[in-house]
Amino acid sequence: MSINAGSERFYEFDVATQVQQVAAADIDGSVSYLTRVHSGWDIMGNANGGYLLALVGHALTQATQRNHCITVTVHYLAPCPAGEARIVVTPVRSGRLFATATASLLLQTDNGEKEVLRVLATLGNLQDESSGPTQMSQTLENHQPLIAPFEDCVSLSESATNNFAYIHDRLATRAHPGDIAFRDGEKSGVALLRGWFAFKDQRPIDTRALLLASDAFPPSVFNLNVPTGWVPTIELTVHTRAIPAGGPIACFFTTRYLQNGLLEEDGEMWDVDGVLVAQSRQLALAPRQK
Amino acid sequence: MSINAGSERFYEFDVATQVQQVAAADIDGSVSYLTRVHSGWDIMGNANGGYLLALVGHALTQATQRNHCITVTVHYLAPCPAGEARIVVTPVRSGRLFATATASLLLQTDNGEKEVLRVLATLGNLQDESSGPTQMSQTLENHQPLIAPFEDCVSLSESATNNFAYIHDRLATRAHPGDIAFRDGEKSGVALLRGWFAFKDQRPIDTRALLLASDAFPPSVFNLNVPTGWVPTIELTVHTRAIPAGGPIACFFTTRYLQNGLLEEDGEMWDVDGVLVAQSRQLALAPRQK
Repeated sequence: MSINAGSERFYEFDVATQVQQVAAADIDGSVSYLTRVHSGWDIMGNANGGYLLALVGHALTQATQRNHCITVTVHYLAPCPAGEARIVVTPVRSGRLFATATASLLLQTDNGEKEVLRVLATLGNLQDESSGPTQMSQTLENHQPLIAPFEDCVSLSESATNNFAYIHDRLATRAHPGDIAFRDGEKSGVALLRGWFAFKDQRPIDTRALLLASDAFPPSVFNLNVPTGWVPTIELTVHTRAIPAGGPIACFFTTRYLQNGLLEEDGEMWDVDGVLVAQSRQLALAPRQK
Repeated sequence: MSINAGSERFYEFDVATQVQQVAAADIDGSVSYLTRVHSGWDIMGNANGGYLLALVGHALTQATQRNHCITVTVHYLAPCPAGEARIVVTPVRSGRLFATATASLLLQTDNGEKEVLRVLATLGNLQDESSGPTQMSQTLENHQPLIAPFEDCVSLSESATNNFAYIHDRLATRAHPGDIAFRDGEKSGVALLRGWFAFKDQRPIDTRALLLASDAFPPSVFNLNVPTGWVPTIELTVHTRAIPAGGPIACFFTTRYLQNGLLEEDGEMWDVDGVLVAQSRQLALAPRQK
């Protein structure tokens, strides 16, 4: 970490999600960005899916000149180790409220570029003030299930998890005590994982960070009678619902249905003011024994 | 309805979702299909979003030579009246288990082709037999909230709804009595809509029909204190979880969070054998007064 001339701090997440436009737009409007998939945001050498989504999300906001990925879907095509890469953003439609675009992350390999993920997103500019009706089935304060306060939760970055989930060295993320006890062999029996998302270097949480948060916790299904192995995400969709007020972010991840080797994991993210800032859903394969 | 030489019935949904490949693949592997957005599957002249997704889903299965859209996301770009159209499917990746592709639906207009939606999908071949672990948080039999039996539910096709929702003339869909009472001015106060999905001409339910079912009911948010106007879908994602055993399909749609004019609607679809056959989630704008 360091301080630059303008006194803006270089947060690790900002460094790891830098993108640089490399050329004028292509005939079809496509814009290319050079980037680097950074090490240290990985699990056993493969970049975390939420981190990769945040990286591409940054390019999408640049290319569409909109501030927020209102709804973004990523299909993961191949594991992605650290390395030089290119992001191609192709516009689909630009309207008054929203802009839709696709994006690809192409990793440089010895055999040329390899596409590791494909994204379809609609972006827009969320407002801080209210811009329409609100009727919530529950609030963060009375959320069922309840989440323990940040200070009563268990740090994920000071644990045996770090022997392979290096991403947690970057995060100050904590988990609800009973939900993470599977690490000590005590599975709760309910596919629920509550926790607080934050950065170790105290970077404020913005909507780009929410894309990381949506995939930064251990799978909630680890609390069921399954092996705690790799859970390959096929597809992840994140809805950004509001601009978060700093951090940490209260997160709730649940899997209702593990069926024939496929599972969904639903996420809710709330800021400290009790605003729903994002929802996520991913489709994944059942955990595989290492 | 009629019988062809091979004794196969021409069901309305099959006629309305026909696609025909028009040329060999393009340089990038893209394949074009001629199709027609049929009238009669619309609400006030604009084709239902689930119907359009099923239409494009058909082209996706053809182009990828896979049977089922395991996870499919559609971003709606413009309203789509009936008319001649073209679907372009572009392959992204073809693997052992899955194939990923994008697709566009291009409506023919007086000013040339107009893209009305963009899709990103991963397809595969679901198996009838078990192919992995299963641990369900609930079953259809003990589902909370419970759904009334088909015969105790209210037909959606014999009601005032048909003055504008012509799609219901094709369907034998029924709704849980209390959940549809908003039509008579009795909003339940809970954004929940349970119902049974089926075709009027008794076409069996397959995974293509599930794409229609995911958007074929009135919005559950109509049970809240909002106008019962147009609810524009920004994005819809459907996870096909199993091959359905005929019909009808028990459906549960809920909106937990209407916040600042944006809402999610989550769907669950179960077949008569109590198998979870699909989940859906859409992001939409709050209802607009007509």
